[in-house]
Amino acid sequence: MSNKATLLKGTRDFGANQIQKREFIFGHIRKVFQKYGFGPLETPAMESMNTLTGKYGEEGDRLLFKVLNNGDFLAKADQEALNTKDSKKVLPSIVKRGMRYDLTVPFARYVVMNQQTLKFPYKRYQIQPVWRADRPQKGRYQEFYQCDADAIGSKGLIYEAELMQIYDEVFVNLGLNVCIRINNRKILFGIAENAGVQDKFMDMTIILDKLDKIGEEKVRMELGNKGISESSIDIIMQGIAITELDELKDYFKNSETGILGYQEVKQVFDFLLDSPLTNELKFDISLARGLGYYTGCIFEVESKDAKMGSIGGGGRYDDLTGVFGLKNLSGVGISFGAERIYDVMNDLFLFPNDLSGQPSLLILSLDASILSHSFQFVTELRKNGIHCDMYPEAVKMKKQMAYADARQYESVIIIGEEEVNSKLYTVKQLLSGKQEKLSKKEILTKFIDK
Amino acid sequence: MSNKATLLKGTRDFGANQIQKREFIFGHIRKVFQKYGFGPLETPAMESMNTLTGKYGEEGDRLLFKVLNNGDFLAKADQEALNTKDSKKVLPSIVKRGMRYDLTVPFARYVVMNQQTLKFPYKRYQIQPVWRADRPQKGRYQEFYQCDADAIGSKGLIYEAELMQIYDEVFVNLGLNVCIRINNRKILFGIAENAGVQDKFMDMTIILDKLDKIGEEKVRMELGNKGISESSIDIIMQGIAITELDELKDYFKNSETGILGYQEVKQVFDFLLDSPLTNELKFDISLARGLGYYTGCIFEVESKDAKMGSIGGGGRYDDLTGVFGLKNLSGVGISFGAERIYDVMNDLFLFPNDLSGQPSLLILSLDASILSHSFQFVTELRKNGIHCDMYPEAVKMKKQMAYADARQYESVIIIGEEEVNSKLYTVKQLLSGKQEKLSKKEILTKFIDK
Repeated sequence: MSNKATLLKGTRDFGANQIQKREFIFGHIRKVFQKYGFGPLETPAMESMNTLTGKYGEEGDRLLFKVLNNGDFLAKADQEALNTKDSKKVLPSIVKRGMRYDLTVPFARYVVMNQQTLKFPYKRYQIQPVWRADRPQKGRYQEFYQCDADAIGSKGLIYEAELMQIYDEVFVNLGLNVCIRINNRKILFGIAENAGVQDKFMDMTIILDKLDKIGEEKVRMELGNKGISESSIDIIMQGIAITELDELKDYFKNSETGILGYQEVKQVFDFLLDSPLTNELKFDISLARGLGYYTGCIFEVESKDAKMGSIGGGGRYDDLTGVFGLKNLSGVGISFGAERIYDVMNDLFLFPNDLSGQPSLLILSLDASILSHSFQFVTELRKNGIHCDMYPEAVKMKKQMAYADARQYESVIIIGEEEVNSKLYTVKQLLSGKQEKLSKKEILTKFIDK
Repeated sequence: MSNKATLLKGTRDFGANQIQKREFIFGHIRKVFQKYGFGPLETPAMESMNTLTGKYGEEGDRLLFKVLNNGDFLAKADQEALNTKDSKKVLPSIVKRGMRYDLTVPFARYVVMNQQTLKFPYKRYQIQPVWRADRPQKGRYQEFYQCDADAIGSKGLIYEAELMQIYDEVFVNLGLNVCIRINNRKILFGIAENAGVQDKFMDMTIILDKLDKIGEEKVRMELGNKGISESSIDIIMQGIAITELDELKDYFKNSETGILGYQEVKQVFDFLLDSPLTNELKFDISLARGLGYYTGCIFEVESKDAKMGSIGGGGRYDDLTGVFGLKNLSGVGISFGAERIYDVMNDLFLFPNDLSGQPSLLILSLDASILSHSFQFVTELRKNGIHCDMYPEAVKMKKQMAYADARQYESVIIIGEEEVNSKLYTVKQLLSGKQEKLSKKEILTKFIDK
């Protein structure tokens, strides 16, 4: 009954080095979130299907991982649907749990459940894996981490400005040059108003979102396909060709919503006037973001040094919690594309070198009778806070050294009878081969700050 | 289409304060693991059903959460089994993924998959949630964290000694008084040999494991039910009444395995002779541990100050990876019962007070025209590494103060026109009501070390 050891497609193990690198990213993000007053939240991996279904569109419903009811799950299944093998119809009767698909819906569910005890505005961050049944391919996984921060319960644009500072500070700390683009859904709505296609606003937004990928010509074609007239398309394309924020004052003289959008973006820039970001913050009227729930400022971040698409994004929404019965709660959030940030940083060699996830020092013993002495030795080093390791058996020194080399320890200390007697220990640097004889006290001093 | 916001039974949300407390525990454990040379590992939430099935006994198979295949999952289902509503028979044709049930099987799977690149001995720790379809009740959840460390690929008893030090150091750091009990499966086998019931060794072990819970009389009865004779039961009970390790030398004069077990435990104590633990390490011949795979030393930890059952346990195994085709790889591991440790620490008020998960300082603005000034102010504080927050709108001061009170900020700074002009800011401690007027420089000094 021996099984082959395999991983499911689209899933990954993370070893020590990868985890150290990932934690390097998450740690930096977490630290900045906390500094800006965002507190952590964790929600369960499984949510009720009622919570999840219908929140991510038809494709989302399809890509949700569903957890089979335990026990005799068919007992309550619809017999007719079983007979006709109608999977869709059988589903609700055999599944009541689904796996977390993003962090936004669980956040909204949490806010609504805890509205009586939470004090608004409530600022939370959340860094957890999500699961999607996407077809696995290079860089796309069925389990991956999301990393979100949201401030909910206030319309104050201070939060937009804060979130821009958070992006800036995190990417400065990670050593990544980025461009943060900002726009506002109300500006896009103003453009739709100017073009007389307010009723097709969401269609327009979704199509404009693809401008970078498919180019202007195809965008015009798709807009036309949605029944938008040639002259309206001209007005839209003129609108999204605007580069200077202040041009909007004139462009929107007949659109109240457009002007409001202009003022919101302007206010964010104004807040940041006296504390400019290190990275570029750029108004980009063509930025649309595909998601339906945004209603105010929207953001997207790209690396300037690697072609990787968006490594962050977010925006303001006015009705995230409405679907759970709590109306009119405005919030704004951003997310970090941690998996892509990892890839960019790997490609650009931005990770520090010492993220091996193991101590740099290994103690070797020449003889079984020495093991106890070696053990006291590492115990003393550890008591002084030194991360170190010892080879657990007195096997041939060649084998112990091969282990030290293979695991890339920086230094080894070899202990034999001579060392025990003389109380002088040979410390060998593996890369250089350099050796020196040191007392225990000298060794403590040497490694204590590592 | 408004849904009621609910959590699935047996699952939990963790807010800021709980996460800080949990991270207090995990952080201490992680730090000690790393100091002792254990590196992190993370495995996916979902594993192939082939990997999971049959590893946890019949009950485990039942309690595994199974993830329904995506798409038209019934298309390939056995029609006859559907017709008869035979859930068990349908299962393999509609489910290929299961959710992580413990950290041991994924660890074994990882070791076997990576045996060519891993250098043995390999020391890993893993802190991740697992899922079990247990009936939810107080203190028992369907999603909970496990926290394991294992050293695999060496029989060296140094590792047993190290793991005892790890238990000791972690519980000292957490402020918990514990008793670590140690025994050895070979000693239990020796007792079975002495009683002439080697063939019923596992039955005996599982029954002895319940001694604490059900008492001696019921243990005798259950042993009898397994067909063990009265005289054999007497020998077993005499054996597990032994309290002094060295008595075993005599007791096992006819059991080679028993003597080996004695020597192993003795060696662990010997290693620790010159570096005694702070907590009690106690030989307990009646310690059995229920799990089938242990073959050498076994451990269990209990709090001395709270009745909570075991808050940690582990042992040595010789064939964890055999089921995936890699034979004879000996290892030893421990786990921390993090959820119970949390409850004990909560009951005993052992968590530090400052784990709120939010900054201690909140900036308030008297007027909308001040917001920009306040924003520059918090920006400067944050640039100096101070965790702080600002109320995002200039609503009535009463409302802002109520927010500060409700969220239990330690101090607020109220900024109005006067403060902007005088450059002296009122810092108010909320608990004491104490106020003082400070310059920005004084404020930086005051909060920078918080």
